[in-house]
Amino acid sequence: MEKFDIAVIGTGPAGLEAAITAKVRNKTVLLLGNKGSSDKVSKAHTIQNYLGLPEVSGEDMAKAFLNHAKSMGVEITEDKVNAVYSMGQYFAIQCHNGDYEASSVIIAAGLTAMKPFPGEMEFLGRGVSYCATCDAALYKGKSAIIVAYSENDEEEAEFLAERAEKVYYLPQYDYKGSLGGNIEVSVDVKPASIAYTDGTAFLATDKDTYKADGIFILREQIAPSQLVPGLQMDGNHIAVDRSMATNIKGLFACGDITGTPYQYIKAAGEGNVAALSAVSYLAELKKSQN
Amino acid sequence: MEKFDIAVIGTGPAGLEAAITAKVRNKTVLLLGNKGSSDKVSKAHTIQNYLGLPEVSGEDMAKAFLNHAKSMGVEITEDKVNAVYSMGQYFAIQCHNGDYEASSVIIAAGLTAMKPFPGEMEFLGRGVSYCATCDAALYKGKSAIIVAYSENDEEEAEFLAERAEKVYYLPQYDYKGSLGGNIEVSVDVKPASIAYTDGTAFLATDKDTYKADGIFILREQIAPSQLVPGLQMDGNHIAVDRSMATNIKGLFACGDITGTPYQYIKAAGEGNVAALSAVSYLAELKKSQN
Repeated sequence: MEKFDIAVIGTGPAGLEAAITAKVRNKTVLLLGNKGSSDKVSKAHTIQNYLGLPEVSGEDMAKAFLNHAKSMGVEITEDKVNAVYSMGQYFAIQCHNGDYEASSVIIAAGLTAMKPFPGEMEFLGRGVSYCATCDAALYKGKSAIIVAYSENDEEEAEFLAERAEKVYYLPQYDYKGSLGGNIEVSVDVKPASIAYTDGTAFLATDKDTYKADGIFILREQIAPSQLVPGLQMDGNHIAVDRSMATNIKGLFACGDITGTPYQYIKAAGEGNVAALSAVSYLAELKKSQN
Repeated sequence: MEKFDIAVIGTGPAGLEAAITAKVRNKTVLLLGNKGSSDKVSKAHTIQNYLGLPEVSGEDMAKAFLNHAKSMGVEITEDKVNAVYSMGQYFAIQCHNGDYEASSVIIAAGLTAMKPFPGEMEFLGRGVSYCATCDAALYKGKSAIIVAYSENDEEEAEFLAERAEKVYYLPQYDYKGSLGGNIEVSVDVKPASIAYTDGTAFLATDKDTYKADGIFILREQIAPSQLVPGLQMDGNHIAVDRSMATNIKGLFACGDITGTPYQYIKAAGEGNVAALSAVSYLAELKKSQN
């Protein structure tokens, strides 16, 4: 497995700046996220106060950012991260399409707007999971509920349905798909809470209660506290110091996920700091290994 | 006297971004500094990692920053700041060309590379001063030594020489001036230390020791601890928290002056945060005054 110096999670201004700065410092970089930068950037209206880009539209800003990254040879790997584990001297990064290793990790994944459902945290890893393709093998002849947030999730549902006997698909977006067969699609159903008892998972909604062997919640983003076991939070934000270090050695965070103000240039500035802190960490790590 | 909502000291990326963001939030802004942005920006070689401006020269970056500021109606007041005093509900800002008042102050003055001379701090306000034009009136019939760092200081020397009987002028830059009369210019003389006793100031140098009623050190920048009485430092840097607040209520700092890394985008990001923190402070202040 290729081992990267620095893995950056997120392609908003914080993640892109972190990746660019790491590249300037000759580090190998794995940049995980959306190839079109973050929605928060690309869908923004005019931005007035990103110094150097006056009166810029979100679309043009995303273009400027992505062109900059491209010109530096920074590539984006489109994958969803399920978990980041500190292994002492390196990190294991579990994604939907595969696993990666990196000596240092920078989380720049933006804010998770969604709160977990009641019961979600409690039954995570038992009745509840975030990656249908990862767990599909376990569902041979079984049933599953998928709470989906984008049309990309339809592929995951189809993959799971090849193994599972029955899949309930609850799209939380404007569903225009054509899922069928053993996949039962219910639109306009809002999940309310989760329970799990005697090997059966229950999803209560504003309509019926669904029952299956397991529930998959395919969020665009996973809350950082779930992403990284043991990560210290400060409310909804990752707790960092001024060097963007978290409580986990070698793990840094930057951008909206570290707190207010939620501003593009603040995020980019923090991405820079996080990358240089990661570079320092790598130097220390190398010294300690010699 | 016009009273500003926010005074920003410094026109590098931190100061410009702070001024722009304050303007976006409809605050009145006094921006004090060099009209050409900071030397550190305009004289830089290629910058690779200011997200959105790939492979940009320092000159082009300064242009982009200044155009942005101009397009937002942000004007730069070219003046040198001698002191900032917290007056409780507002700040008094003492400059070479006049005094200003602001409800909140953001220091974005960059790093002072120069260390004070031995004795400088000890005799500051007695034998040592930073503004010749301010104190000129006190030097009628007296003598003074000027340690000068730019050709702009020649004017100050001439102004002082109109009052003083004798002025010793020690340029620390490539002197091409034509000062004369009661001004004695000594080039290539490096100041070493300062002493003051019985009303006489002594400047020891690598050549002679100079003797006069007072010494003026016309630094481009004054160390922040001298600029703002009571300001808490962290080594050479102003101590700030993640909101860019200093230990003095209403006073914020951003950019290189708050610590490493000395990077343009980090400075700009902090300028944004400092401005929004100042905006919050102004809202609180207003509430407390009602």
